Amino acid sequence: MMITILSGGTGTPKLIQGIKEIYPQEEINVIVNTVENEYFSGGYIAADIDTVMYTFADMIDERYWYGIKGDTFHIREKLIELGTEELLTIGDQDRAIEIQKAILLEDHTLSEVVEFQKNHLNIKAKIIPMSDEDSDIKINTKEYGEIEFHEFLIKYGGEPEVLEVIYSDVNPSPELIETIEKSDKVIIGPSNPITSIRPITSIKGVEEALKGKEVIAVSPFVGNDAFSGPAGKFMTAFGYETSSKGVAELYKAFLNTLVIDNQDAQMKGDLEEIVPEVIVTNTFMNSIEDKINLAKVVLNME
Amino acid sequence: MMITILSGGTGTPKLIQGIKEIYPQEEINVIVNTVENEYFSGGYIAADIDTVMYTFADMIDERYWYGIKGDTFHIREKLIELGTEELLTIGDQDRAIEIQKAILLEDHTLSEVVEFQKNHLNIKAKIIPMSDEDSDIKINTKEYGEIEFHEFLIKYGGEPEVLEVIYSDVNPSPELIETIEKSDKVIIGPSNPITSIRPITSIKGVEEALKGKEVIAVSPFVGNDAFSGPAGKFMTAFGYETSSKGVAELYKAFLNTLVIDNQDAQMKGDLEEIVPEVIVTNTFMNSIEDKINLAKVVLNME
Repeated sequence: MMITILSGGTGTPKLIQGIKEIYPQEEINVIVNTVENEYFSGGYIAADIDTVMYTFADMIDERYWYGIKGDTFHIREKLIELGTEELLTIGDQDRAIEIQKAILLEDHTLSEVVEFQKNHLNIKAKIIPMSDEDSDIKINTKEYGEIEFHEFLIKYGGEPEVLEVIYSDVNPSPELIETIEKSDKVIIGPSNPITSIRPITSIKGVEEALKGKEVIAVSPFVGNDAFSGPAGKFMTAFGYETSSKGVAELYKAFLNTLVIDNQDAQMKGDLEEIVPEVIVTNTFMNSIEDKINLAKVVLNME
Repeated sequence: MMITILSGGTGTPKLIQGIKEIYPQEEINVIVNTVENEYFSGGYIAADIDTVMYTFADMIDERYWYGIKGDTFHIREKLIELGTEELLTIGDQDRAIEIQKAILLEDHTLSEVVEFQKNHLNIKAKIIPMSDEDSDIKINTKEYGEIEFHEFLIKYGGEPEVLEVIYSDVNPSPELIETIEKSDKVIIGPSNPITSIRPITSIKGVEEALKGKEVIAVSPFVGNDAFSGPAGKFMTAFGYETSSKGVAELYKAFLNTLVIDNQDAQMKGDLEEIVPEVIVTNTFMNSIEDKINLAKVVLNME
């Protein structure tokens, strides 16, 4: 049974760690957000794609959910010694991945480059960038006006008040729509709904394709708190409540089932007014057992 | 007494190793060929400039006369493991230098970038790119038509027959002419006359500036052989003899003194018909003593 996972960079890869323990990789497709992709220091950074690749290859540095565990930092250290401190902390092996992307992108599409790299990392799952086109995400903030998303996250530590999130319209990558259409189930992981998932679902044709499928989403919220990152601010900027209710509203056009945390059990009734089915379970993914248990829930394998 | 050295990538840096042992770095300027500069794998390679920098900083890998001695190759090895073998062999520290150049070139001129880097390497000599503009060198070959210079050297091992050497006209870097004018002596090192020195001397204003100076050149030839690289082929393509006689003809408009090797002593009389003064000495630079002795000759410090 073919499944497709929509993924951003932290929450969903954790769920993937669980899924890949109990499900054959050959039947897993992951469609990955690309809005934060950019050329940086001569390499091409596809942060969410790399996190997904490293997760499948058991290479991910789980301290930060980006980069490769045990990586060295010789280039970074040399650059600092020479007076240039890069805004992003990039390990040597991770940098090689980025440099290779930049080299291959001269003659190939991003989809082709990702296919090439994931094969070299012996990954059997299919990893599909949402688009092969450059896309851009900008955050309109109260304090600093319109800034890049990575500036918002790294330079300003996710602190500024968000007025608006703006991302460019891009075409789907060649296999995106077809992959959803041929899947038996679509899993929306607990990634940031506004900056990771909505960029995928707002691509032309995606929402239409999702409507014909069994779609299950894991809420990234417990109460009004997001598991990771500044998801709340972005929900507010789009006019949604910072909670699983906001997630239900955001996905309701195509969502069959929403998975929420035990701590939000009291919301079940209200949420069932918005989406057909609500499952209450533990959505905290601290241990591999947590991840496998949540994977079993979303895969109906309990 | 201010001196200026015109340099390419191998022969002249060897002479610089001798000069820097006996002459104050603060009074040394080096004007460096930039025709082979290029963006490569996300970094900016200024091969001759880096070789000169690494020579002054005692970092140069003398096995190849490029790169840093003792450097590691983690990025290169990772790229090969991932299926991409770069045409050039670049060490990690060397790559950091190249990445920093690419980063800084976004907001600065090449002259500024080199000044910044050489200061961080604690180099007291002044290192001046011949031009801040992109320049290009192409080799028209019998076998493969017009190819890039690095293809000629690396991909084809310097083997093809050379019909023509074509380089683009560029403007001098801001300090180039002034540096020559304020020097008491100009030393043209034993670099490739066609691909390293002529690109510098053919820049507008340089030949004029050299004419007012005491100019001494070390011939890169002994008999009809060049000390390093395929210099001979290029001389022939420009209609010059592959020997110190060709060098004398090439530089005669501004040359006061030509230094040739003992083995060419019999040419002295003929050469004095072309240039005012000819010095015969050992021009092989195998040991540091050789380099210092030759440095003493060109500096009149015997």
